[in-house]
Amino acid sequence: MDALSGQAVGIVGLGLIGGSLGLDLQAAGLTVRALVHRKSTAERARERGLAQHIDTDPGVLEGCGLIVLALPLDRLLDPPAALLAALPTDAVITDVGSVKQPVLERWQPLHRRFVASHPMAGTAEAGVEAGIRGLFAGRPWVATPTACTDPIALAAVQELAGLVGAQWLTCQAPAHDQAVALISHMPVLVSAALLEAANLGGRAAGADALVRQLASSGFADTSRIGGGNPELGTLMARCNREAVRGALHRYRQQLEQLEALVDQQQWPELQGRLEQCQAIRSEFL
Amino acid sequence: MDALSGQAVGIVGLGLIGGSLGLDLQAAGLTVRALVHRKSTAERARERGLAQHIDTDPGVLEGCGLIVLALPLDRLLDPPAALLAALPTDAVITDVGSVKQPVLERWQPLHRRFVASHPMAGTAEAGVEAGIRGLFAGRPWVATPTACTDPIALAAVQELAGLVGAQWLTCQAPAHDQAVALISHMPVLVSAALLEAANLGGRAAGADALVRQLASSGFADTSRIGGGNPELGTLMARCNREAVRGALHRYRQQLEQLEALVDQQQWPELQGRLEQCQAIRSEFL
Repeated sequence: MDALSGQAVGIVGLGLIGGSLGLDLQAAGLTVRALVHRKSTAERARERGLAQHIDTDPGVLEGCGLIVLALPLDRLLDPPAALLAALPTDAVITDVGSVKQPVLERWQPLHRRFVASHPMAGTAEAGVEAGIRGLFAGRPWVATPTACTDPIALAAVQELAGLVGAQWLTCQAPAHDQAVALISHMPVLVSAALLEAANLGGRAAGADALVRQLASSGFADTSRIGGGNPELGTLMARCNREAVRGALHRYRQQLEQLEALVDQQQWPELQGRLEQCQAIRSEFL
Repeated sequence: MDALSGQAVGIVGLGLIGGSLGLDLQAAGLTVRALVHRKSTAERARERGLAQHIDTDPGVLEGCGLIVLALPLDRLLDPPAALLAALPTDAVITDVGSVKQPVLERWQPLHRRFVASHPMAGTAEAGVEAGIRGLFAGRPWVATPTACTDPIALAAVQELAGLVGAQWLTCQAPAHDQAVALISHMPVLVSAALLEAANLGGRAAGADALVRQLASSGFADTSRIGGGNPELGTLMARCNREAVRGALHRYRQQLEQLEALVDQQQWPELQGRLEQCQAIRSEFL
């Protein structure tokens, strides 16, 4: 049985991820039914054509074969009873949260066909205006199945990811959460601390204006995610706290080692470390 | 007397900065005479047309009214005797080093018309192939005059900066060095430590491949300068060591504060700090 043929796809939430998904799935010929929180969002989402059927009544999800929970992490981890009651027992349910272990713990007992997944795509935008076509093309879409995951449900989510052009991969939830802590959640704090240090350090040096005038593309890039969505950054740290703490601890160790090389004027050693960094980065891109 | 009219401009070193300057100054109608270290560099620079007269003999600088020392910091701080002997006594001399106090200390006693300056422009490239047209357009060109600086020499360097479209500003050398430590030199180490942490943390989690697969544009941006030119990063730390140490200290304080908020689950406080970061960043761009 193919969850994506014949039946509508449901989307809960039409922010950046939900809205982009609605646009791509309709373009792929599917019927999309969407549940949103506010009437004003529903109106704007209808104007933007983010789904064919959009309502604030959970009944809009009736008859959907696959439902994507595109909610912020905090609401995903504390779902309203009316939403739970409206999810068809036989539908495949998946989410798009950037942390997987807490989502699995919460949702696996709630629905027998739940599949934890995480499309790794984004822009700086959020909300009902943010959704765009092609957001997922070429980006990873990670699922974290467990021994309890229904393999047919997993295949349906894989089919969905393929329809929007994402690159499918699966891994264990704890490995996912540690990996995203290292490459996404912890770096937000590393980047935020840079903004604070440049601001306060500039002030202490009587160079408030100068640091702002001289900041160039290097500073802009390094500080980008630290100056990003504050709610999202906080949710990531909150919902992936143990992994973020571990990543921060690891980060501080490395920074302190580099600092020690500067303190002790060990220049060939510092250059060797920076040469390694150059090589490492090429593996990550 | 106008240093840029009638007399040739000299450039010592035809790497990214020197080569770009040679291209722009020739396009502005000036005669450019360049001194390079190696015969092979001279040949390639001639092929690329980086200056009208290019030689490995310091005598090429004879008759220049203004000479730009576009050397790496270590060579700038330890100039060969043959170069010093070849600098005309009446020429205006300036440099392009990213640290100003040590350059002033070294060069002010060496030449009475020395002006310390720093065009803040760059790409990821280096060497004789790196020079491009328009590199300085709209970018800051900072001079750090002292009480001993010849005001006519300073005006000549300002004219040069204007010819290549840069935005001229002046400040005290110590303020410059602290500012660039905060917005350029220290961030290299912050970014490098992120690459090391993601690499080692991924390995420790058994997620070597996963961290590489999941790293996205956020990681690419935050890690860009940490994975940049290792020699340049080391020279910056070495030649601006005290300011870099101060900036690192400031940075670590801020990061530890953010880490404490995560440890103590102070989520509204963390979100408030990230909101401030978002506002700060807009001031820096």
